Parts: sequence; structure tokens; C-alpha cells
Amino acid sequence: MNFVMTPIGVIRTPFSDKSGMPIQPRFSQAVGRVEVFEEYAAGLQDLEGFSHVILIYALHRSEGYSLRVKPFLDDVARGLFATRHPGRPNPIGLSTVRLLAWRDRALEVEGIDVLDGTPLLDIKPYVPDFDARPDARAGWYENRPPDKEGRS
Amino acid sequence: MNFVMTPIGVIRTPFSDKSGMPIQPRFSQAVGRVEVFEEYAAGLQDLEGFSHVILIYALHRSEGYSLRVKPFLDDVARGLFATRHPGRPNPIGLSTVRLLAWRDRALEVEGIDVLDGTPLLDIKPYVPDFDARPDARAGWYENRPPDKEGRS
Repeated sequence: MNFVMTPIGVIRTPFSDKSGMPIQPRFSQAVGRVEVFEEYAAGLQDLEGFSHVILIYALHRSEGYSLRVKPFLDDVARGLFATRHPGRPNPIGLSTVRLLAWRDRALEVEGIDVLDGTPLLDIKPYVPDFDARPDARAGWYENRPPDKEGRS
Repeated sequence: MNFVMTPIGVIRTPFSDKSGMPIQPRFSQAVGRVEVFEEYAAGLQDLEGFSHVILIYALHRSEGYSLRVKPFLDDVARGLFATRHPGRPNPIGLSTVRLLAWRDRALEVEGIDVLDGTPLLDIKPYVPDFDARPDARAGWYENRPPDKEGRS
């Protein structure tokens, strides 16, 4: 059983190609604009009280996948599902970003790490009770080489 | 441009219907089993160092959506994208769960909040640097009625 996903908007960012793009939003102060298509705009109501949102999007430029990949932040090949590599069986990406402003059908966000033109699939409010596990252990990521700190 | 998603596995849980299901994983100690199909099993390597993973799945029982919904945890209708309601234009769900054990092609996880048989679309490692924002403000959720604490 397959599931067909249809973009509900588009993410505008300063990144027209992968070079120079931050590896992950925590290390980015880049500002982007999440434009929701008119027919979905009413669904943005009540987001103004949230400091962060989770963007779910299609990794539209990724082509195929490998089950073992060398992460950007490591020197060793890892199992794909232990990485955030964009080449995945289902090319779904997620990024938690800071919500700076909300106007009509657009969100201005900080900490964006996706290519300009990325198709938006969903927006979810970030709720620390559900989403924050500050003490989680992060396997190989915690022991990655010092030259792979991920700050671009 | 549409995107076709194909399940990479299935999530086994104690919840055969929506009644009695925890609202969100933070409030659940329920144990589930994430079974990845054989062809993807090699991608689970290196997950053993992670205490938590993010499951991405199809909300396969949701039917249609409304842009204003009354959340389980509130008495007031809210914009859909300010809620985690399962009825969404693209029925993608995400849950952060504790990784208890990993054997062959199955993960045993704690804190599961999905229906038995939920189609798995992706697994991502939970990395606090990327995913934890413990001080995030959570809008209406922080001011919800005291009888809607969400602990099932």
C-alpha cells in the first residue's frame, strides 16, 4: 500500500545548491520563508504562540539511497537509519526551526537547512513535552571526529 | 509534483483501536516493536548507540482533514498546523520513542502512541543538537485546561 503526498507549500531559503548549506538547523541562523498555498492558509491559525515548528518536507533532490552511507559529520560508513542522510527509501526530511513571524500564508523561520524550492508536506507545532529529549544519547554522533562539528 | 511513499516496515503496538491509545509518547510507557522489512534491515546498523529514535509513519486510518480542529488536549478549535491532529493533508506522523533493544530487523521501543499495523516510512536517529529545544514555548498547549493533561 503506497501513500501519495502532495505539497502544501514551498520553502524559500538562501540555498540554491548543496554547497554552503548548513548540515543541520541547530548550526544555522539562516532565515527562510515557508509559503503555504492559499487553500491551506487557514490551518496556520494559533501558531503564533509557538516558538518553534517542525517542518516536514520532501527531499526532492535526493536520488535513490544506499543502506550504508558516510554521514557528513563522520568519516565512517553507518547504517542509513542511524544517519540523517537525505538519500532515503522515502525521501522525507524534518527540521525544527524557530518561528520568527507569521503573516497571512507565510511563516518566517530561523535555522533553516534545506534547499530553496523544497516542497513542504506538513507543519507541526514543536511541543517540548512531546519532542524534547535533551538527555538523549546520540551514538556515533557524540564521538564524531573533532573536525566534523557540523558548523558550516 | 507528487511523492509516492512506500512502507519500509510496520509498527506493532498494543493498540488495536484509537480508544485507550496514549495521546503522545511522552505520556506512554507502552512498548512496541518496529519491524523493518528484510530488504531494509542493513540500514539499522549503528542505531545501538542512540537512546531515542524518531519514527515517521503513515497515519493510515485518518480520513480527510479539516483546517480547524479541536485538539484532544484542548476545548477550543485550533488551526490544524498548530495541532498534532492525525487528519492532515499529508497523513505523516512522527513520534520520538526510546530505543530499548535492536535485534536483526526489529527495534523494541518504549513510549509508542500509534495503532498496531501502522505503516513505517522512515527511522531517524534522535540527536539532541538537532532535535531538542527544551525551552521552546508551546502556545495553546501550555495553557490547556487542567483536565486535558494528556496522560491516558
